[in-house]
Amino acid sequence: MTLNEAIEKLNELEKASYALGHAQSILYTDGDTVAPKNSWKGRGKAMAYLSELTYKQLVKPETGETLETILQHKDETDEVTFRRAEILKESYDELHMLPMEEYVAYQELVNESMTVWKDAKDGSDWNLFAPYLEKLITARRRFASLKAPDKPAYDVLLDLHEKDATMAELDPFFRALREDLSPVIKEVAAREKPVPAFLKGPWPVEKQRIFSQKVMALEGIDPLCCTLGETEHPFTSGTNKWDVRITTHYHEDDVLSSLYSVIHEGGHALYEMDVRDDMQFTCLADGVTMGVHESQSRFYENLIGRSRAFCTPLLKVMKEVFPEQMKGVTEDELYSAINLSKPSLIRTEADELTYSLHVMIRYELEKAMIGGDLKVADIPGEWNRLYKEVLGVDVPDDKHGCLQDSHWSFGGMGYFPSYALGSAYGVQMLQEMEKDIDVWTTVAKGDLSPVTAWLTEKVHQYGHLKKPCDLLPAAMGGPLDATVYTGYLKKKFTELYKL
Amino acid sequence: MTLNEAIEKLNELEKASYALGHAQSILYTDGDTVAPKNSWKGRGKAMAYLSELTYKQLVKPETGETLETILQHKDETDEVTFRRAEILKESYDELHMLPMEEYVAYQELVNESMTVWKDAKDGSDWNLFAPYLEKLITARRRFASLKAPDKPAYDVLLDLHEKDATMAELDPFFRALREDLSPVIKEVAAREKPVPAFLKGPWPVEKQRIFSQKVMALEGIDPLCCTLGETEHPFTSGTNKWDVRITTHYHEDDVLSSLYSVIHEGGHALYEMDVRDDMQFTCLADGVTMGVHESQSRFYENLIGRSRAFCTPLLKVMKEVFPEQMKGVTEDELYSAINLSKPSLIRTEADELTYSLHVMIRYELEKAMIGGDLKVADIPGEWNRLYKEVLGVDVPDDKHGCLQDSHWSFGGMGYFPSYALGSAYGVQMLQEMEKDIDVWTTVAKGDLSPVTAWLTEKVHQYGHLKKPCDLLPAAMGGPLDATVYTGYLKKKFTELYKL
Repeated sequence: MTLNEAIEKLNELEKASYALGHAQSILYTDGDTVAPKNSWKGRGKAMAYLSELTYKQLVKPETGETLETILQHKDETDEVTFRRAEILKESYDELHMLPMEEYVAYQELVNESMTVWKDAKDGSDWNLFAPYLEKLITARRRFASLKAPDKPAYDVLLDLHEKDATMAELDPFFRALREDLSPVIKEVAAREKPVPAFLKGPWPVEKQRIFSQKVMALEGIDPLCCTLGETEHPFTSGTNKWDVRITTHYHEDDVLSSLYSVIHEGGHALYEMDVRDDMQFTCLADGVTMGVHESQSRFYENLIGRSRAFCTPLLKVMKEVFPEQMKGVTEDELYSAINLSKPSLIRTEADELTYSLHVMIRYELEKAMIGGDLKVADIPGEWNRLYKEVLGVDVPDDKHGCLQDSHWSFGGMGYFPSYALGSAYGVQMLQEMEKDIDVWTTVAKGDLSPVTAWLTEKVHQYGHLKKPCDLLPAAMGGPLDATVYTGYLKKKFTELYKL
Repeated sequence: MTLNEAIEKLNELEKASYALGHAQSILYTDGDTVAPKNSWKGRGKAMAYLSELTYKQLVKPETGETLETILQHKDETDEVTFRRAEILKESYDELHMLPMEEYVAYQELVNESMTVWKDAKDGSDWNLFAPYLEKLITARRRFASLKAPDKPAYDVLLDLHEKDATMAELDPFFRALREDLSPVIKEVAAREKPVPAFLKGPWPVEKQRIFSQKVMALEGIDPLCCTLGETEHPFTSGTNKWDVRITTHYHEDDVLSSLYSVIHEGGHALYEMDVRDDMQFTCLADGVTMGVHESQSRFYENLIGRSRAFCTPLLKVMKEVFPEQMKGVTEDELYSAINLSKPSLIRTEADELTYSLHVMIRYELEKAMIGGDLKVADIPGEWNRLYKEVLGVDVPDDKHGCLQDSHWSFGGMGYFPSYALGSAYGVQMLQEMEKDIDVWTTVAKGDLSPVTAWLTEKVHQYGHLKKPCDLLPAAMGGPLDATVYTGYLKKKFTELYKL
């Protein structure tokens, strides 16, 4: 096969892969937003067939040859094409090692598990979900053993979400978070502030929908390329830079929950929307790792969205949409209200200070679950024990405990650490950004475009082109350092709580 | 190939066809409801590839043999399987005669034309849409010439939407409608009633959304299997009986527009939701023709939804949702208000009496357009001339004229007559239904289930199983008779307007 033939075949592969991925992504988003509940059966059939096609399009003898041909001609191949071949080779190897029936059966298991998890969560019924989780764990272990038989299974799963992440690296990372943050969390809890009266709302859903649109505009999200849906568990799903979907969830008695979901998912969306045009419709048009993706979402959510400077434009918008609820509220009061810290039950609702310890608990549980040291039946008890030990809270039921997150239902073991890593990456990026631009003046003006331009230059534009080991140190000004992250949190909450 | 082998291959074909059709349907619905505007590019790529796959899955040498094998063993094959082979053979023949590139290019043309049509309609800019319509006409003519070179092209297109319909049958049908109805329309117009004050609203969109849900419940639509979206041009799209989508469009100053869109699309939805379980996920799980589909939608919309009896439950629901707007309004006032008749510009907003003449105008234009007697550039003039001649109204611009409907933009020439045929079928079905059940007592009680049960028994359950030539006379108590339809309209409007 000549190089030109191989490149042509690569383009054909990408065309099929884009189309099937596009369809699967839209079916998933539709299924979770506006589809009727009973649609799962037909969607399952369609998804299973599309998975089968995805497998068949990629796993055929000529694919290996095609990709090898390109990889052997690095000097004659442009950077984008070479990297596409590299990434597709990884996907090919991952699919290739599984028989198709097993691959399709796994997709069906995930589809079914997600539906069952929702019912289990609604009814706080661990026993309903447990047999599915059992199967998912078996499937993930089997995947890991095929992919890298010599590595611990959980390291293989971590690597899927955060390239090269290992327990050897994460153990000290999470230990540092816990050791550094626990004393502050305790001190803050001792000085608990009352929830200010204005936060109680009520916040009519219809007004919150209008508010969301204004928040997206403030964040700089182009509505021609990104729309907002409503789901139980907010997420972002993009097929290309001109078609990104984010979702949120409204509560009449809580405006902050949806506000920070919108900003968080909006951060993911901006990343996808800023990837270079020449990588669109290829496997590079995506975030490079989950950790880097979360670094962007949590950058906008916390470093910007919960900053003192952001309170200026935020209060203005809130007063426009909620004049009665926000009557008389000052920027300082808003800043304090959006940064109330208190150990709590739900990760996605957790404050910035306690958040990463929610992640740490999941990391410990996943290590044990995948490593074989924790039975599925024992997860609720262990979850509750860790929440008491680490955060000092009593878990009343599994809905507010080990059934709260969707991740395990889609086989996403190894995903959670990305949230904490991303938070840490983001703080290091902010330090670098502050050297280049006057972040807080522009944020206070309600103009986030210089912030997004900086992130686009350092991170977004590259999509999956640069490897994380090249991308991250350049954007962060050095290697990962947990103390930069904990230092930022300690400073912020020491000031906020006058410790 | 043995019969058993053929049946197995048929099942494989249906599996692929269902999955690809499911994906295309959801992508279309998503694209028209919640997708960001700029998503068209990626969707176009995905749709083109899925079309290519649809073609490739069906058009291969073994398909012909598979279907022929089954068709040659009628006695040994069950009714459902045999009919599936028959219907797939028609699709196979239609696809087979076109080279794949031409088929895919046509799908792309349709995708692009629909986007352009929307912009053209928004800007009332015929010249923007004209070159696309030109290409669509050429493509439809070419399709017709390949499918049945000896038949007039428009007859071939009519047959696609209403099996066996021909100009020879439709010319006298539409002539009868025009001759019978024109005098009544004139008399009614002479006794024009003022629009009652309460109709002016305003009708807040948020309240209308709640109203829609209640109307769907009144119509007997299971929300677990059917959800409502919002689009410029309302439509119904179903992939199986457990997953049907309908859409509507809200206007602050007009509550009836959305109300009757919801009831109309709800009628389509009920048809799809009542097809027998054993035909789901096969090519039989659909309405048998467009005309029969429209007979159901217009049955609920007009024969039920605009009946005197329906005003009892309808008024109740309206007073619940719109207590201020509906204060003091009586059932008789509501009945009069929902049946105001006046020649107007927009087909989808037309009253029951004048509606079919809107269709007749389109029928005449399409005959000339496809027959080669009307140039694309001359359509706006001819449209406006016919509206003046037939309905006596002046068309102010193409947005309210020849750009109002989406049908041509998706190549649906030959579709419009189905609306008038469906209306006529429905009235004949109602006559039969009245012999079996006490229609108006149950409708007045707000219980439409006996109506739907009757339609399910006679029409819905069969999906595409029975041929229209068998299904319709049984449900209608005889052949199509335009005078039954016009007789119904004349009686209703003579009473309403005390002619």
